[in-house]
Amino acid sequence: MKEVTLKDIAKILGISVTTVSKALKGYKDVSEETRRSVMMLAENLNYKPNAIALNLKNQETKTIGLVIPEIVHTFFSNVVKGVVSEAEENGYLVITLQSSESNLIEKKQLEMLVDKRVDGILLAIADETETYEHLENLLKKEMPLVLFDKVTPTVNCSKVTIDDRKAAYEAVKLLIDSGCKKIAHLRGPLGAPNAADRHEGYVKVLEENGITYDPGLVYLCDGYSVEDGKKYAQKALKEHTDIDAFFTITDHVATGVLLHLNRNGIKVPEQVSVVGFSNSPISQVVIPGITTTDQSAVQMGREAVSLLLKEIATRKEKKPVEYFHVQLPTKLIQRASTKAV
Amino acid sequence: MKEVTLKDIAKILGISVTTVSKALKGYKDVSEETRRSVMMLAENLNYKPNAIALNLKNQETKTIGLVIPEIVHTFFSNVVKGVVSEAEENGYLVITLQSSESNLIEKKQLEMLVDKRVDGILLAIADETETYEHLENLLKKEMPLVLFDKVTPTVNCSKVTIDDRKAAYEAVKLLIDSGCKKIAHLRGPLGAPNAADRHEGYVKVLEENGITYDPGLVYLCDGYSVEDGKKYAQKALKEHTDIDAFFTITDHVATGVLLHLNRNGIKVPEQVSVVGFSNSPISQVVIPGITTTDQSAVQMGREAVSLLLKEIATRKEKKPVEYFHVQLPTKLIQRASTKAV
Repeated sequence: MKEVTLKDIAKILGISVTTVSKALKGYKDVSEETRRSVMMLAENLNYKPNAIALNLKNQETKTIGLVIPEIVHTFFSNVVKGVVSEAEENGYLVITLQSSESNLIEKKQLEMLVDKRVDGILLAIADETETYEHLENLLKKEMPLVLFDKVTPTVNCSKVTIDDRKAAYEAVKLLIDSGCKKIAHLRGPLGAPNAADRHEGYVKVLEENGITYDPGLVYLCDGYSVEDGKKYAQKALKEHTDIDAFFTITDHVATGVLLHLNRNGIKVPEQVSVVGFSNSPISQVVIPGITTTDQSAVQMGREAVSLLLKEIATRKEKKPVEYFHVQLPTKLIQRASTKAV
Repeated sequence: MKEVTLKDIAKILGISVTTVSKALKGYKDVSEETRRSVMMLAENLNYKPNAIALNLKNQETKTIGLVIPEIVHTFFSNVVKGVVSEAEENGYLVITLQSSESNLIEKKQLEMLVDKRVDGILLAIADETETYEHLENLLKKEMPLVLFDKVTPTVNCSKVTIDDRKAAYEAVKLLIDSGCKKIAHLRGPLGAPNAADRHEGYVKVLEENGITYDPGLVYLCDGYSVEDGKKYAQKALKEHTDIDAFFTITDHVATGVLLHLNRNGIKVPEQVSVVGFSNSPISQVVIPGITTTDQSAVQMGREAVSLLLKEIATRKEKKPVEYFHVQLPTKLIQRASTKAV
């Protein structure tokens, strides 16, 4: 993405931008010596007046940018691990930034990465982000971009996701097959596409199995924390005393539900079943262990880098860029928080 | 750290290194035009033959490097979060790398960061690292360096740590005060300085409280995982049936111990008490909750950046560099895995 400007040439030679401009145009008030230096440098730096098409050759920074919503989240730390490992194995370094789910911060960080002239950007879109001009702008600049986990169909670029709809469908199907009939859903924020997809999977499997979808059983979590799980389990059970299962947006939320049930002497899974999402370490160590969906976060990070490097190489060769959507397989992991089928 | 070389000049002008070298020395077989271009460029890029002292002005990359042993470890992801936040607030971007506790990888990554011309480096030393020439070399190059968490007294630079000795002392004191007499220690690797410090704290508090130190009660964990905890709890209880407490190197190891005790019907804390280290989320959600030491990882990341930026600024102003050792306070958090005092 490095674009050589008049300013760069001026700075290197320690002369004014006007002089560089005049020299390139062959003005007579520029000394022959200066003109030659400017021409030589412009040629070797591959300067193109009003350059839009950029020659990436020799201008790579071998650095890629990674913007994730939250570093301290097992899923994303695993993604970072995958990204850093795959990048390093291919000779690239990774600048990591955290948007904290804020649209404003996300925009600012993408600008910083462009200024930094990274060779490409990996992004999991912040929950708050609902319009995508800032991403369209990246594409206009021909900045290689790969979205992962939190993506949008609106932006035309490569993507790595899991099939959230299918994963949710399978998880809730397990609950239905084990005899649950009143399944609450503690879902993620409305803006988050994967939260929307999981919700869709939940609705679909209920309907296909003769259970009427009740929007009153769906609770919107503010965050993805253990505290959210406690809070909404309490609220849900107060409003619907006959809930017999919780399908939750993350293992942390599921853990909160579990803690609430444990403290209130409600037996898991005999009275209420609990399903999480992500297969975080937490889901394996709480008692009972939480049934959850494994989404191979390290693999997601590696795939995203791999698609990005492919795009960087393609652009370098000035070949037409193809976009790919890789959907990684998920695996439903049954533990003691759900009844045997 | 940007050091202009003959090669850089040659590359920019599209001529050979030999020609650049000859031009700078005024050899007659170089054309006057080339000689002038080389001289002009060398002057403006501030080229110094065999430069050791570097002029950092205008050559900042506003990027810092961060090398940690393991990204997917709650303590370190919190450090990354603190580093990224503090750096960003000060206009710096962070390149994160993971050494996986390997000395070879650590060396390679530090070299990559130097090549990348970062303005400074933050490092938590890998457990495997036992000699420090690679760090001494960084200091010789005047690369600003701050060590954190896993540090060594051998290298003279700024450091951010907790007082591991004191934290371990306090944790084991709690066990003694609650009536425990046979306290096993599942410690970290021998090479890791903080594991050594915690072990020292353990030994000291035993001796000061009239309990003879028994090296047979100390088990060396290969890693820091839940699996290690299970494995060594089993081994320890087989070899010493009267162990009444475990002081462990991390909350994950403590969780493994807890799972082993739970599965074998051993009551915690009535029969055996368990103490972890770090106050990870896992320590809060297992049942019973694990007594542990909070070590404010985010704060550690922020402090490390703050010391690094101070050093970068001092070097830029060509003032003498002072090194600081910041010891962050820790807090012993009592939960249900230990008896009341």
